[in-house]
Amino acid sequence: MRAIIVRPPKAGVEIKDVKEGEVDNYGKVKIRTLYNGICGTDREIVNGRLSHAILPENRDYLVLGHEAIGVVEESCCGFSQGELVMPVNRRGCGVCRNCLAGRPDFCETGRATDLGTKGKDGFMREFWFDDVRYLVRVPRALEDVGILAQPLADVVKSVEEMLSVQRRVPLWSCDDGTLNCRRALVVGTGPIGILFSLALRTVGLEVWMSNIREPLIIEQTLMEEAKINYYNSYKGYDELLKTQGKFDVIIDATGADASLLDSLLPLLNRNGILGLFGYPISGTFSLNNKDIQDIVHANKLIIGMVNGQKPHFEQALVYLASWKTLYPKSSKLLITKTISINDEKEVLKALREKADGEIKVRISWL
Amino acid sequence: MRAIIVRPPKAGVEIKDVKEGEVDNYGKVKIRTLYNGICGTDREIVNGRLSHAILPENRDYLVLGHEAIGVVEESCCGFSQGELVMPVNRRGCGVCRNCLAGRPDFCETGRATDLGTKGKDGFMREFWFDDVRYLVRVPRALEDVGILAQPLADVVKSVEEMLSVQRRVPLWSCDDGTLNCRRALVVGTGPIGILFSLALRTVGLEVWMSNIREPLIIEQTLMEEAKINYYNSYKGYDELLKTQGKFDVIIDATGADASLLDSLLPLLNRNGILGLFGYPISGTFSLNNKDIQDIVHANKLIIGMVNGQKPHFEQALVYLASWKTLYPKSSKLLITKTISINDEKEVLKALREKADGEIKVRISWL
Amino acid sequence: MRAIIVRPPKAGVEIKDVKEGEVDNYGKVKIRTLYNGICGTDREIVNGRLSHAILPENRDYLVLGHEAIGVVEESCCGFSQGELVMPVNRRGCGVCRNCLAGRPDFCETGRATDLGTKGKDGFMREFWFDDVRYLVRVPRALEDVGILAQPLADVVKSVEEMLSVQRRVPLWSCDDGTLNCRRALVVGTGPIGILFSLALRTVGLEVWMSNIREPLIIEQTLMEEAKINYYNSYKGYDELLKTQGKFDVIIDATGADASLLDSLLPLLNRNGILGLFGYPISGTFSLNNKDIQDIVHANKLIIGMVNGQKPHFEQALVYLASWKTLYPKSSKLLITKTISINDEKEVLKALREKADGEIKVRISWL
Amino acid sequence: MRAIIVRPPKAGVEIKDVKEGEVDNYGKVKIRTLYNGICGTDREIVNGRLSHAILPENRDYLVLGHEAIGVVEESCCGFSQGELVMPVNRRGCGVCRNCLAGRPDFCETGRATDLGTKGKDGFMREFWFDDVRYLVRVPRALEDVGILAQPLADVVKSVEEMLSVQRRVPLWSCDDGTLNCRRALVVGTGPIGILFSLALRTVGLEVWMSNIREPLIIEQTLMEEAKINYYNSYKGYDELLKTQGKFDVIIDATGADASLLDSLLPLLNRNGILGLFGYPISGTFSLNNKDIQDIVHANKLIIGMVNGQKPHFEQALVYLASWKTLYPKSSKLLITKTISINDEKEVLKALREKADGEIKVRISWL
Ligand SMILES: [Zn+2]
Ligand SMILES: [Zn+2]
Ligand SMILES: [Zn+2]
Ligand SMILES: [Zn+2]
Ligand SMILES: [Zn+2]
Ligand SMILES: [Zn+2]
Ligand SMILES: [Zn+2]
Ligand SMILES: [Zn+2]
Repeated sequence: MRAIIVRPPKAGVEIKDVKEGEVDNYGKVKIRTLYNGICGTDREIVNGRLSHAILPENRDYLVLGHEAIGVVEESCCGFSQGELVMPVNRRGCGVCRNCLAGRPDFCETGRATDLGTKGKDGFMREFWFDDVRYLVRVPRALEDVGILAQPLADVVKSVEEMLSVQRRVPLWSCDDGTLNCRRALVVGTGPIGILFSLALRTVGLEVWMSNIREPLIIEQTLMEEAKINYYNSYKGYDELLKTQGKFDVIIDATGADASLLDSLLPLLNRNGILGLFGYPISGTFSLNNKDIQDIVHANKLIIGMVNGQKPHFEQALVYLASWKTLYPKSSKLLITKTISINDEKEVLKALREKADGEIKVRISWL
Repeated sequence: MRAIIVRPPKAGVEIKDVKEGEVDNYGKVKIRTLYNGICGTDREIVNGRLSHAILPENRDYLVLGHEAIGVVEESCCGFSQGELVMPVNRRGCGVCRNCLAGRPDFCETGRATDLGTKGKDGFMREFWFDDVRYLVRVPRALEDVGILAQPLADVVKSVEEMLSVQRRVPLWSCDDGTLNCRRALVVGTGPIGILFSLALRTVGLEVWMSNIREPLIIEQTLMEEAKINYYNSYKGYDELLKTQGKFDVIIDATGADASLLDSLLPLLNRNGILGLFGYPISGTFSLNNKDIQDIVHANKLIIGMVNGQKPHFEQALVYLASWKTLYPKSSKLLITKTISINDEKEVLKALREKADGEIKVRISWL
Repeated sequence: MRAIIVRPPKAGVEIKDVKEGEVDNYGKVKIRTLYNGICGTDREIVNGRLSHAILPENRDYLVLGHEAIGVVEESCCGFSQGELVMPVNRRGCGVCRNCLAGRPDFCETGRATDLGTKGKDGFMREFWFDDVRYLVRVPRALEDVGILAQPLADVVKSVEEMLSVQRRVPLWSCDDGTLNCRRALVVGTGPIGILFSLALRTVGLEVWMSNIREPLIIEQTLMEEAKINYYNSYKGYDELLKTQGKFDVIIDATGADASLLDSLLPLLNRNGILGLFGYPISGTFSLNNKDIQDIVHANKLIIGMVNGQKPHFEQALVYLASWKTLYPKSSKLLITKTISINDEKEVLKALREKADGEIKVRISWL
Repeated sequence: MRAIIVRPPKAGVEIKDVKEGEVDNYGKVKIRTLYNGICGTDREIVNGRLSHAILPENRDYLVLGHEAIGVVEESCCGFSQGELVMPVNRRGCGVCRNCLAGRPDFCETGRATDLGTKGKDGFMREFWFDDVRYLVRVPRALEDVGILAQPLADVVKSVEEMLSVQRRVPLWSCDDGTLNCRRALVVGTGPIGILFSLALRTVGLEVWMSNIREPLIIEQTLMEEAKINYYNSYKGYDELLKTQGKFDVIIDATGADASLLDSLLPLLNRNGILGLFGYPISGTFSLNNKDIQDIVHANKLIIGMVNGQKPHFEQALVYLASWKTLYPKSSKLLITKTISINDEKEVLKALREKADGEIKVRISWL
């Protein structure tokens, strides 16, 4: 069958016929791929820049792809033929308490595996076999935007974790019982930044998104439909601090230079959370002794957040469904392109580089 | 202005002109009523059966109505003219910690007030003035089903409370991290029962709803769209226990005779919750010493649940938005009738008795 | 070796020589018994009244005893020769999530086992072998009162569970951040009632204990040292309600007739918890429809609580240590008698019936 | 009356007669000072190094002292003459939700006040008047070590906050339900480091304390009595990492150079917490992009922790009581000196500098 393969640590990507018996499968349910999403991690692998991407043992290629929607090919194990499903991409280590409880996002051994990245094949192929435990049902009504449930699951888990962590504060809720008085700054308006902005809005926070340029159409649409604010950080964050004050939640969703965090820390409110999500590619975050003193006496918290699991995929689908109703224009703008697997040149190009204005690109296997 | 009024403890309901200066208002935002929902509590008042319904001091009538959507008449206090809003119906006592924190659902003094029921006027009138603190923004896309956010808020709060309470169990989540292995039985398929079934489904549980007859169209549609199971309890619950085993959550949403609970208790699983929501009108729930022993050594819990507040209204609106996408046919069946306020006879009839097959009836003030 | 054995469902108890190879052992650490505690459950077995007491398969006797302190006989597996240890008496089912997480108190299968009660031998014998997982280190300084850590673990778990459950209330803490304004009524002043009173006091609540007679010396000492209040309920609870108002927590620690609960329910405050701990031997708890309505609209909760696990044994030992400092007189009164295993007649008598004024009786194997 | 006063930002300390009407009082209960504790913060003020120490308005001196035990002079407001009490040193802003809920440790406005430090008089004076809300009862049995409840309250709050934050992990508890498998590294063995080590031990963790020298008598006693491990970090932390692996909790209790954190971060385990407590006086904590990536994909968390409130004082007293039983030798070593207020020279010397081997020094007003 056809598959999109990579050969880390070497750069490069190919569409190639692979032997069915040679690639990794994970269970009894046969799933024919409908869509794959492409994300920044895929491109880092393709461009030979993701240090923790590794080949399977005894093989010189890895099937790429950790975002997928497929169709159940034959009824099995509680799933019916024709149902849409989505695989959870991180798989448990089989040993630690959290993995056994279905939560490899908090794996204790570090041996949980990200399919399509770390030595185990992903989902950019005609079909694969998978286990019920890692399959999420996707309602037909979400066939159009459903692929976003994978990155959104990571975001949903992060928001859940931040809300859990804030239970350390006796009352983090507002005078009316909601979170409407809490203000979040989401830095970066790639797909992750947009999904964070929408998810935080959905749980009730007031949200500012920022990027180093004027807002594009998607951002303008989010401002209008979802009442998310936008800040152009081209000249830094002083103006934002001066006009809007401090933020209770700040999310770095850029993957830019770590020194960005130096300029965000002064915007963090007492009892606030600085959430780290993106992987900075360079630079240093420097906290001098005054910064540390401030973190201590104002109860500030810095947290690394990663990987949504099955409960988060399920909640992501509910969020996507609600956004289709509440923010129909924005929802339509989230999938910027669908490329047929038969259009090989376009597929490979999309895997190598991000297009202007791209939010999420899908490969269609139909 | 016109208003629908009652005179508890006397039975009866009228549409009457009331003086603007005579009725209760709660703030600065003027709101023109668009819709009112009618619920069982309204009918109990109308029929003189709600013992805790009371007249305002120094007045011989009470404006009825605790479910409303209105339009902001003039921009004020952060709300813009033309915005849709919904009032939270229970108002804080102004004294206790929970009311001050925006959570009169957990009022400590018992002096929180239910507007339209307990001595303070409700929303079945042309317009009223209200306070920002108790107003929930309703997206235009939810004008059709939005009125359900009031009863749904009560349900959302109840589900939140049950999930909070179950954190007593080290792992109440399933092997895949979700709640998919947890099974809920919702007894009664009036509006509350239906909303409970959908809300529990939305957080991941498998759901059985039951009523003492064959499923009607709404229930059939829920079975098909939302994969909710249905059990005809006409002959009792033995068959259900025999074929399906025990349930982790059982909700009494009937308001029937309290002895119903005698037949539900044997279906409650270890570590399970029996949630009481409806107000039983008669009868006794009898727990003999064996029942108590079983509750003790199987960690069982019985909980009374009541009243959603502003955060629950907000979440209810997200749920309704998601259901419009995921369960479009069911969503359309939830509002069974809209009656114009000008059709006085129909309005008064609807206030006196529930029609066959009714789920939610709205009065339109347009 | 010598062992105290029973033959359920038959009444009776003997001290008998049993073969080492015939009785149950649970691991590699050899432990020589120092003390056994006797509790009501033991006496119910001895008197043939505990319906869930069962014999081991293929054997006609069961070694009694679920409260023990022993000395490690040979260094092994992280324990040193001479260390004092205490076994956790309930053992996991080996299958369910909670048992695997060390919490068989929330076993999902019902197949967790209570040693000394349900088909597996207990600790009233010269020595046994046990597993590290179920052994709690006992500081030498607690040799005198340490045996109480077994029943106290059950109480500590119950208090922890109630505090966890009350997180459903936005602010259950008081205006000064403590629990000093919360009031508990503990009904029954046997060992469990006394331990509940002290444990609730230790987490900050104001406590009333009640019994149907004037306070004895232990209760007077608790009143004086621990500022616990006492109520003589000989004439019922009306006087208590009239003079003290309602209670946020009510614990039934009597094991009396279930109808006692009928008289306690009216004393339960809004947002309150009625905690069931004792096993009522007869009677019925009747909740009429008004009672149910009140439970619903005042957020009341009834909870069955059972069995402390290893973390609760550890916390119980900390509590006992603090009480020795804070309540030295009360602490000394808690162990009312120590009987040598060589005084067979006295041992058997103590196993058959509770003496006047008894709180906890120990058997010494020294 | 006599009082110990300072004149920030100027260095210096005096014992001086102050007018009763001139100094700050906070309520109706008159309290005669029994003991004051001296801590590092006091010395920073005395030496003119605490930038946020400020004078009261319209006055040229501030009464020093935030650690005190006193005797109630006249029965009042629920307190009896002769009772020992301890003041909570931080007072709420009177405005924000958390201060109103008795938790100024999470003040939202930043206007909560630390008595004896920030513009309001402290407790180093013959007597003061205080409010019930901020007074903690101290059992007579803790007269000797009770003064430690103030710094210990800060530690207890920090441990509580870390345990709350770790509820983000589905199972942070171990296979036996306890926290015995979790390992903490406490850096610095001043009073705060010692109290952290003991408090973490009390909730079940395995603890390593470290300092840049061989262990002194107190540390040797803690090793022996409380089974706390000790590491000499004179040559850095490589040896510790190599022999003991990573730590789930790392506490900086040094107040040393911030660059210390650079050497601690590599020792932090997945899902771990780096707790910042001390105020570093110099230096920079540098997180390069690899560090940030590691924080992100291993769920690491950095948290600033500060100030215990009344519930933490109460729990601190329970801990101190338990330690007197469990660790009697260590408990006796914690108060290293008691100086009479009449020995002015010694008092002033103790306020200026820390003596060799000092843990906690008390001033006695008897
Ligand atoms: Zn991705
Ligand atoms: Zn794992
Ligand atoms: Zn209603
Ligand atoms: Zn209230
Ligand atoms: Zn027992
Ligand atoms: Zn189990
Ligand atoms: Zn201090
Ligand atoms: Zn404040």
